[in-house]
Amino acid sequence: MRDLDERTITDEVLRALSNTSDIRTRKVSEALVRHLHDFIREIEPTQQEWEAGINFLTRTGQMCSDVRQEFILLSDALGVSMLVDAINHRKPGGATETTVFGPFFVEARPQFALGANISEGVAGVPLFVSGRVRDIDGNLVPRAVVDAWHSDDEGFYDVQQGSDLKMRGRFTADEDGRFWFWSVRPKFYPIPNDGPVGEMLAAQGRHPFRPEHVHFMIAAPGHETLVTHIFIEGDPYLDSDVVFGVKTSLVTQYEVCEPGIAPDGTTMDGQYLALNYDFVLSPEMSS
Amino acid sequence: MRDLDERTITDEVLRALSNTSDIRTRKVSEALVRHLHDFIREIEPTQQEWEAGINFLTRTGQMCSDVRQEFILLSDALGVSMLVDAINHRKPGGATETTVFGPFFVEARPQFALGANISEGVAGVPLFVSGRVRDIDGNLVPRAVVDAWHSDDEGFYDVQQGSDLKMRGRFTADEDGRFWFWSVRPKFYPIPNDGPVGEMLAAQGRHPFRPEHVHFMIAAPGHETLVTHIFIEGDPYLDSDVVFGVKTSLVTQYEVCEPGIAPDGTTMDGQYLALNYDFVLSPEMSS
Repeated sequence: MRDLDERTITDEVLRALSNTSDIRTRKVSEALVRHLHDFIREIEPTQQEWEAGINFLTRTGQMCSDVRQEFILLSDALGVSMLVDAINHRKPGGATETTVFGPFFVEARPQFALGANISEGVAGVPLFVSGRVRDIDGNLVPRAVVDAWHSDDEGFYDVQQGSDLKMRGRFTADEDGRFWFWSVRPKFYPIPNDGPVGEMLAAQGRHPFRPEHVHFMIAAPGHETLVTHIFIEGDPYLDSDVVFGVKTSLVTQYEVCEPGIAPDGTTMDGQYLALNYDFVLSPEMSS
Repeated sequence: MRDLDERTITDEVLRALSNTSDIRTRKVSEALVRHLHDFIREIEPTQQEWEAGINFLTRTGQMCSDVRQEFILLSDALGVSMLVDAINHRKPGGATETTVFGPFFVEARPQFALGANISEGVAGVPLFVSGRVRDIDGNLVPRAVVDAWHSDDEGFYDVQQGSDLKMRGRFTADEDGRFWFWSVRPKFYPIPNDGPVGEMLAAQGRHPFRPEHVHFMIAAPGHETLVTHIFIEGDPYLDSDVVFGVKTSLVTQYEVCEPGIAPDGTTMDGQYLALNYDFVLSPEMSS
């Protein structure tokens, strides 16, 4: 294994992987080497460009923290996250479509009772969110665990503001598959663009915006966990989402509600918005 | 740009790159997206595998510091660094072959006079290093800047030990292209394997070793800067270098020298080794 050149090195690296004991690790390693070498052979980077690439990846890793995941942003902005999502959700017809998980989920999110306000003290237009959870045969799914999270009315998540956890919560749907809660209207927003991914987008002449949306993750025994968003009709970025995540079936409208008694019995002094969406879970795949 | 699926997303991401103003940036971005998507489509990662990949890249970045460059190690261990090296050194015949730069070069290396000992106070077998610098027509190249760096006799670089800079230095060759200095014999060594790259090598059933070598970087006006190593015949890892960097033309032998007057006039009380290698620089490419 000496004197490797542009032609011979790839096969030699592949040969070096031949002692990989785990079959899947070997397959992934081999594919990585082949595609990475093909990329290098196509672009023929100068040493300076290679250094710039090393530097970009290093800074991307170093930008990551408890509240920032720059490599997920990179994956999102290159369309990789949505491609992985598509590959993993070749679902039976009728299930709610999926989209990216995004970098703003927080494992330690608060649990709320149905009907709670997850954005107590947050400025913004009041938003009543509700829906039902069904399976692909139309049966109601009882007691699904429903996670929701979204931005504030300026487009920032709690974790970006360094504030307490707000605009996110976990609920258990009722026996009839219903869930409902109060929050505030979110806004379209730029993905964090003060790091390497922001530099990349600027160099590519791309805006960093995502259309207004509420994230949902819905889990119930015997079903695939659903990770998706609900988007809002009319948003200026629906057709240019920087992470390529919009599905027509996930776009809906707010109902503008006048002051009075809300669907959950709350008396509202002012106008508010209502967002209703029914979710359909796929049966769990045996893998 | 909605409802993208496994088939349509790649073209849509490529379309999103169409406003990239710099032609080279556009070419690199497009190639990255195509090859990365092809890799994903080939391996069809589960969401858990995608998360493991994000986590691996994040930890690789976070392992980097002033004295550790884990992404260079990753590039080296996947054969990418040597591929880039090969692409960048399609040299005219006769020039000294190149190999990887490696992660242990230090910009702030000390400057020494010819004949100095760059490893004062370091334990090990004394080593007299010398050589000449020529161009491809055989002409001596005067006053080249010669950098050398290598491990200690246990296989560690100064920066890995947290010690002062040792076993590295910069010299200016003389009018006749000659350089010489004293140091200690290095040793084969494992690349740092307490991080993500070490995990990868273990998973791939690969040893982390590089054969014994001395790094050289030689620069002179009108010539391509040469980055290479000199390896030692008989090393157990010459044919399985973890970074794929060995070239037969770069392998030589130590001369075992008996006590007495060394070539530079130094009186040596004990046995020592001498390493002599003549380097040939390529003319500078106009780019």
